[in-house]
Amino acid sequence: MMQSVRVASGVIPAVLTPLNADGSADIALLEQHCRRLLAQGCNGIVLLGTTGEANSLTVSERRQILEGVLAGGIAADKLIVGTGCCAVGDTVELTRHALSLGVTRALVLPPFYYKNVSDQGLFDAFASTIERINDDRLHLFLYSIPQVSGIPLGVDLIERLHKAYPQAIAGLKDSSGHWPTTQLLCQRLGNSMHVMVGTEALLLKAMAAGASGCISATANVAAQAIIRLYEKRDDPEAAMIERGVNATRAAFEAFPIIPALKAYLAETTRVDAWRSVRPPLQPLAPDEVNQLVRRVDEATRK
Amino acid sequence: MMQSVRVASGVIPAVLTPLNADGSADIALLEQHCRRLLAQGCNGIVLLGTTGEANSLTVSERRQILEGVLAGGIAADKLIVGTGCCAVGDTVELTRHALSLGVTRALVLPPFYYKNVSDQGLFDAFASTIERINDDRLHLFLYSIPQVSGIPLGVDLIERLHKAYPQAIAGLKDSSGHWPTTQLLCQRLGNSMHVMVGTEALLLKAMAAGASGCISATANVAAQAIIRLYEKRDDPEAAMIERGVNATRAAFEAFPIIPALKAYLAETTRVDAWRSVRPPLQPLAPDEVNQLVRRVDEATRK
Repeated sequence: MMQSVRVASGVIPAVLTPLNADGSADIALLEQHCRRLLAQGCNGIVLLGTTGEANSLTVSERRQILEGVLAGGIAADKLIVGTGCCAVGDTVELTRHALSLGVTRALVLPPFYYKNVSDQGLFDAFASTIERINDDRLHLFLYSIPQVSGIPLGVDLIERLHKAYPQAIAGLKDSSGHWPTTQLLCQRLGNSMHVMVGTEALLLKAMAAGASGCISATANVAAQAIIRLYEKRDDPEAAMIERGVNATRAAFEAFPIIPALKAYLAETTRVDAWRSVRPPLQPLAPDEVNQLVRRVDEATRK
Repeated sequence: MMQSVRVASGVIPAVLTPLNADGSADIALLEQHCRRLLAQGCNGIVLLGTTGEANSLTVSERRQILEGVLAGGIAADKLIVGTGCCAVGDTVELTRHALSLGVTRALVLPPFYYKNVSDQGLFDAFASTIERINDDRLHLFLYSIPQVSGIPLGVDLIERLHKAYPQAIAGLKDSSGHWPTTQLLCQRLGNSMHVMVGTEALLLKAMAAGASGCISATANVAAQAIIRLYEKRDDPEAAMIERGVNATRAAFEAFPIIPALKAYLAETTRVDAWRSVRPPLQPLAPDEVNQLVRRVDEATRK
């Protein structure tokens, strides 16, 4: 059965984190960006996910960013906050901090330093996270992004976690980008939890298979087109909208996507705080920025 | 030219972290273990490395463990402490903390969440770490363990870092376990920095190619044999000692090595705090422990 509150569905951008010249987060600009995306019709905001460079930020920076965005006036029930760290203790701290501020939805990576770990080890890590958080309000979204984290979350593990913690496990973000994986997850889990797909490129197929929506990096710069795709998903024009949306995404994916999205926002809003990234990511070179803008323009005109 | 102080050479165990029943670190037992290994003739101790489950511990737990081990009487100049985190800010904090306690040698992972990052991105991450630490006493050991971190450190990157920061970059731990990689690193870098190989299985070959010694997980339980191998490396009997050492290591590597080493220490010392691990690692099952002990006994008798 679907959760009646705090659902995750529709189009939810995973927001970028703008940085000041000294490398600290520009929280006022981030809050403004969240506000604009919500005004454009997004169904929520994922703060501090992979796209937000969360794992290049310290625990205390992550706390400050969440506090700042809420203080700026973004409603707690619009946010899903990334709280997954290598150490379960940090994940517990960040999730409890979010709950203490009224943010009940957390997107949680498995502990991702050790590789080739067992399903039992991953089960114990999530179980211990949930039990140490010990808060009935928690809505945890499991976060599967194996090409970055190195840790695939299999459907059997997810089902077992959901059976053990039916209230706490609210959903799943599948960013595998691999359709057979996404299809299986949507079909097996779509009736019992919110399966959010990590790219709008799979949105139509995933919705048909049981997904609830998408959490998208591209939505930082192309939210309206993706929302239109979501809304028209059952209409004959959906395939045409999808072609346009995919062409835009492909323009960004021709480059490392986080620096590319930031560069594009910097160009189009003329705000330099969007341009920089934290190492080990690298900003695009000026000629790459020019190429990117040209490619995106061409894609948008199609 | 070799550093005249704070060298790393010989046999250095990467110590396991014993855990109390509540999951916290048993710091008194850890300090005792370090003391015993130094008494056995080890040339130093790597605290809070991969084997020490450092990335399953929070920043504040890592600080407490280092403080506790020093307070217990282990000399600061015997320690190399693992301080590498996903976020450069955490790496800087932990390394500065170590320096404030007189521990000048740090073993530093590259930021390891984002994958397929450029050499320039990794260079900037280490450069920014060193510049933010801003302490002439720092001796940083680059830590390459690509099968766990997902981030290979290439020889060109290491040379470039060493050229830019000749005083700060003191050495390298290569845990690739891949002889052609290790050989290249030893040959190219062995004259200008301390190359420590991550397994005693490659110790003889690596020493001949220019390495300074090994940082070993197995040395938690078999330090004396590995020290003998190091000391007799130029003697005719070296090959025979190596066969014995390798048989012992193979017995542990038949299982996930961290839980196996802990189980063996728990069995042989009858101290239960050695047995447990933090998720996502899993302790060995009782029948696996029996198999392990039998295998190690057989290897030792050979």
